[in-house]
Amino acid sequence: MTTWPDLAGRLDDGVHVLPVRVYYEDTDFTGIVYHGAYVRFFERGRSDFLRLAGIHHAQLQAGLSGRPLAFAVRSMNLDFRRPATIDDVLEVRTRLSDLKGARIVLTQEICRGEDLLVAADVMVAVITSDGKPTRLPAELASRLTGL
Amino acid sequence: MTTWPDLAGRLDDGVHVLPVRVYYEDTDFTGIVYHGAYVRFFERGRSDFLRLAGIHHAQLQAGLSGRPLAFAVRSMNLDFRRPATIDDVLEVRTRLSDLKGARIVLTQEICRGEDLLVAADVMVAVITSDGKPTRLPAELASRLTGL
Amino acid sequence: MTTWPDLAGRLDDGVHVLPVRVYYEDTDFTGIVYHGAYVRFFERGRSDFLRLAGIHHAQLQAGLSGRPLAFAVRSMNLDFRRPATIDDVLEVRTRLSDLKGARIVLTQEICRGEDLLVAADVMVAVITSDGKPTRLPAELASRLTGL
Amino acid sequence: MTTWPDLAGRLDDGVHVLPVRVYYEDTDFTGIVYHGAYVRFFERGRSDFLRLAGIHHAQLQAGLSGRPLAFAVRSMNLDFRRPATIDDVLEVRTRLSDLKGARIVLTQEICRGEDLLVAADVMVAVITSDGKPTRLPAELASRLTGL
Repeated sequence: MTTWPDLAGRLDDGVHVLPVRVYYEDTDFTGIVYHGAYVRFFERGRSDFLRLAGIHHAQLQAGLSGRPLAFAVRSMNLDFRRPATIDDVLEVRTRLSDLKGARIVLTQEICRGEDLLVAADVMVAVITSDGKPTRLPAELASRLTGL
Repeated sequence: MTTWPDLAGRLDDGVHVLPVRVYYEDTDFTGIVYHGAYVRFFERGRSDFLRLAGIHHAQLQAGLSGRPLAFAVRSMNLDFRRPATIDDVLEVRTRLSDLKGARIVLTQEICRGEDLLVAADVMVAVITSDGKPTRLPAELASRLTGL
Repeated sequence: MTTWPDLAGRLDDGVHVLPVRVYYEDTDFTGIVYHGAYVRFFERGRSDFLRLAGIHHAQLQAGLSGRPLAFAVRSMNLDFRRPATIDDVLEVRTRLSDLKGARIVLTQEICRGEDLLVAADVMVAVITSDGKPTRLPAELASRLTGL
Repeated sequence: MTTWPDLAGRLDDGVHVLPVRVYYEDTDFTGIVYHGAYVRFFERGRSDFLRLAGIHHAQLQAGLSGRPLAFAVRSMNLDFRRPATIDDVLEVRTRLSDLKGARIVLTQEICRGEDLLVAADVMVAVITSDGKPTRLPAELASRLTGL
């Protein structure tokens, strides 16, 4: 029995969907959501996408796949189309777009109902504890591509 | 049908319980959760406690109860007992402790399973759009005390 | 006499340079600066770049240029090259790249000494209080292009 | 020659004073500074107070004083009196109030000109890398009390 069934979102035909509530902390004095808050929302989506694939930050860092690994964002293209406001429930949608060696490319969207608010292309690298890029272990890679 | 049943948490015998996941954004270089992140978690708990009582920030600000109102934190006593770490699922527990005129006092806790990590006493004021304290409208007050 | 001479940075041949210190709040559990923190640093750079041009958010919102105006980020391309760590002093460098009607394009860099850590191209729109894009008032535009 | 003379603030008769600018990231939809932002401002004040005493987070963590040490906030009493708004320049004032074994007590204020906006009493512990409280090395302690 899981008490909070959807806390890490759900996978829908290869697309990970995470609900996110807009709180005080996410807004700014212009009355809408601060653009930097979406960057945090996208990261939550990526983390829970990986989580549902069985990939956990704490385990990676503890070296469960042979040596300590972490993810680092290498590039991000953000397109802000419409604003969100306090109390909104948004959905962060995350899809694997490409996976090659140390590079993972994800396509992400933040929507409110049918409306696309923010779109992002994100390239993430797998790095060792001294910051060097390294290949994602094959077993983890197959979990991602198998979603 | 609600797709995300527990997104705003639930009320359990007068205590509001909100699950919160620890993400990258909440941690710092010492490897644990940044103390300021708990302050954000507590605010999420208060917002969703009010939400389940039928009190919404957006409606308050739009003047639905006669004139624009908002909540402002007046004081906060924080006791940090144990650290949380990345990937943890925490629970923010919020209970109304006192309600008098413009002042609302809440007792809050952040727990991981049975462990109490952070405790807080928070005094919140109801304010008008020019920052003056004002009595919480009777109808909203009775919703809170009736939980 | 200004007590804190460089708090808003300085202009150096058309390039605005703002020093930024890395604090606890900017780092994450992997030991380095959280990628979302650079997005906040870039915004500080843009705000102080505008400030030195005599353009203040508070005045814009108060309608000093005829009606309430604000800036909204429309798109952002981020390239993360090297990580920063706790206690680092970084420089945010901001340069006007294009200004046409409601659109302002800025080129930004975050450096540590001679090293480029993060690069960004940012498109900002001038919007009215109901979110509609509008031309930057001519007087403000000339202040920007005159730097 | 230091290019940014006051970036870490200054000591004035035992009181550390750090200027802090209010940016977009620090405000919320009610138009004023988010209460959690002051918690970050206080931490910046404490970090730079320690910095001017010659105590650096990066060096502590690297084990320069014998073994890896860090600071952890144990308790915090916050009193929010008046709001700050976008573009404000605030001063964070930090004073050592008590130092005994593993515990450091600091009295902090955030002011705008002569006005006190937020007051805080903060208890900080010195901890080892496994989170155990430990005495601040005598040499560092004497640097703090000698300010």
